[in-house]
Amino acid sequence: MALLLDNQFNQLPPDKSVNTKVFLDTVSHLPAFFDCLGSKVFSIIKSDINGNITKIKAVYVKDPAKYVTLQDIVEAERLEHGAEWPKVGATLALMWLKRGLRFIQILLQSLADGERDENNPNLIKVNVTKAYEQALKRYHGWIVQKIFNAALIAAPYRSNFLKALSKGEEVKEEECLAKVQQFLVNYIPTVDAIYEMYTTLNAELDYTV
Amino acid sequence: MALLLDNQFNQLPPDKSVNTKVFLDTVSHLPAFFDCLGSKVFSIIKSDINGNITKIKAVYVKDPAKYVTLQDIVEAERLEHGAEWPKVGATLALMWLKRGLRFIQILLQSLADGERDENNPNLIKVNVTKAYEQALKRYHGWIVQKIFNAALIAAPYRSNFLKALSKGEEVKEEECLAKVQQFLVNYIPTVDAIYEMYTTLNAELDYTV
Ligand SMILES: CCCCCCCCCCCCC/C=C/[C@@H](O)[C@H](CO[C@@H]1O[C@H](CO)[C@H](O)[C@H](OS(=O)(=O)O)[C@H]1O)NC(=O)CCCCCCCCCCC
Ligand SMILES: CCCCCCCCCCCCC/C=C/[C@@H](O)[C@H](CO[C@@H]1O[C@H](CO)[C@H](O)[C@H](OS(=O)(=O)O)[C@H]1O)NC(=O)CCCCCCCCCCC
Repeated sequence: MALLLDNQFNQLPPDKSVNTKVFLDTVSHLPAFFDCLGSKVFSIIKSDINGNITKIKAVYVKDPAKYVTLQDIVEAERLEHGAEWPKVGATLALMWLKRGLRFIQILLQSLADGERDENNPNLIKVNVTKAYEQALKRYHGWIVQKIFNAALIAAPYRSNFLKALSKGEEVKEEECLAKVQQFLVNYIPTVDAIYEMYTTLNAELDYTV
Repeated sequence: MALLLDNQFNQLPPDKSVNTKVFLDTVSHLPAFFDCLGSKVFSIIKSDINGNITKIKAVYVKDPAKYVTLQDIVEAERLEHGAEWPKVGATLALMWLKRGLRFIQILLQSLADGERDENNPNLIKVNVTKAYEQALKRYHGWIVQKIFNAALIAAPYRSNFLKALSKGEEVKEEECLAKVQQFLVNYIPTVDAIYEMYTTLNAELDYTV
């Protein structure tokens, strides 16, 4: 579990603001998560998420003192971009990034909760599908949904996936899943806070790709 | 046809060397080709090809005088990278880029030649599939092939595609196809020359993604 726990998210402050620098540092380790899925097919998703992170970082480094929290960025862009906003800049990048983060969250949570297809206990199809349905499906047109179904076949076996999460170390399954639970403790409130911010600022869009 | 003919490829010199700067300038207009396919699904492919071009350009600008032709780059990288080569740097980027270029070539040629499914004369499925089979399929594992089949459904109608190639201008079909033929006159020898160079330099790989 080195991979995930090396880069544990920080605990949120009481006002639930997300510090931009800390967030970017932590989240930049997450695209490697998609390597755990094993197939090169998922490198496409990895680049999409990397692109989101790069875009947010590019805004942040222009004025770190101004953009201390993620909300600072989104609010500044609302002023700056007028009618184009929120389908623009770091606001758009974070809108999609949070969906990828939610996908990862639900997938890990579902595995840690022991949800599985009793007929195929070593497949993670049921967990991946749950994560997809809750985090992404509604933002995908039917062709991308079909592509998801095709890509699903490339999903790894449960045992290989857990091993990859542990960076190849031979750890017991319960040990690995306990660490996943621990990782989720700060991860979930951070993702939740970003979702809440998008609702509060009316920054959420529901167009499909 | 503004789109394509605005950016006609140059005629090759007798030694068939491809000038790097001219090539990069011309080819950088091609990713827009995938916008003509209409669906946002193809923006993934557009970024892949854009990535190839960016990678080659990044090598070129480091020393334009050294890298006058594409072959100069590939040969310099062979010296530089040892055993890693050719799966590295601009050599790898151009290896994949040429396959995308070949895909475009065969698709356009097939349309210009009037190849069509007589039962569905306004579909380009038969042309896209031919291009895919000849240019790319063998480099794709079965999952990506499945994804191609799913994506194929997003292919535009022939009439809309030709209109998009003409940048929305209302031109007659024959006129558009004649201009496609004209575009191909210098395009095909350029793509051929790159393929020949990869064979001659033993730079071609046939791994699948
Ligand atoms: C040769 C044959 C090939 C044929 C063609 C193939 C085409 C394949 C297309 C498949 C789609 C791949 C997934 C990527 C989808 C992306 O389109 C979406 C939206 O992506 C966003 O779009 C915005 C503009 O609308 C901005 O550009 C954002 O960029 S911006 O930073 O510039 O603002 C960008 O992230 N991201 C998403 O849906 C996010 C996906 C997140 C993670 C998903 C996990 C799924 C795991 C599955 C496990 C089984
Ligand atoms: C949320 C659900 C989503 C689930 C997951 C979805 C995943 C979707 C994956 C679909 C594949 C999309 C196509 C991209 C394929 C690419 O993987 C390949 C190889 O790409 C190369 O790979 C190299 C390393 O091996 C280097 O990184 C190259 O990069 S480097 O520059 O760094 O060296 C890179 O171009 N390019 C290709 O196959 C080229 C494709 C060219 C054009 C194809 C035209 C087809 C048109 C079809 C019309 C109907």
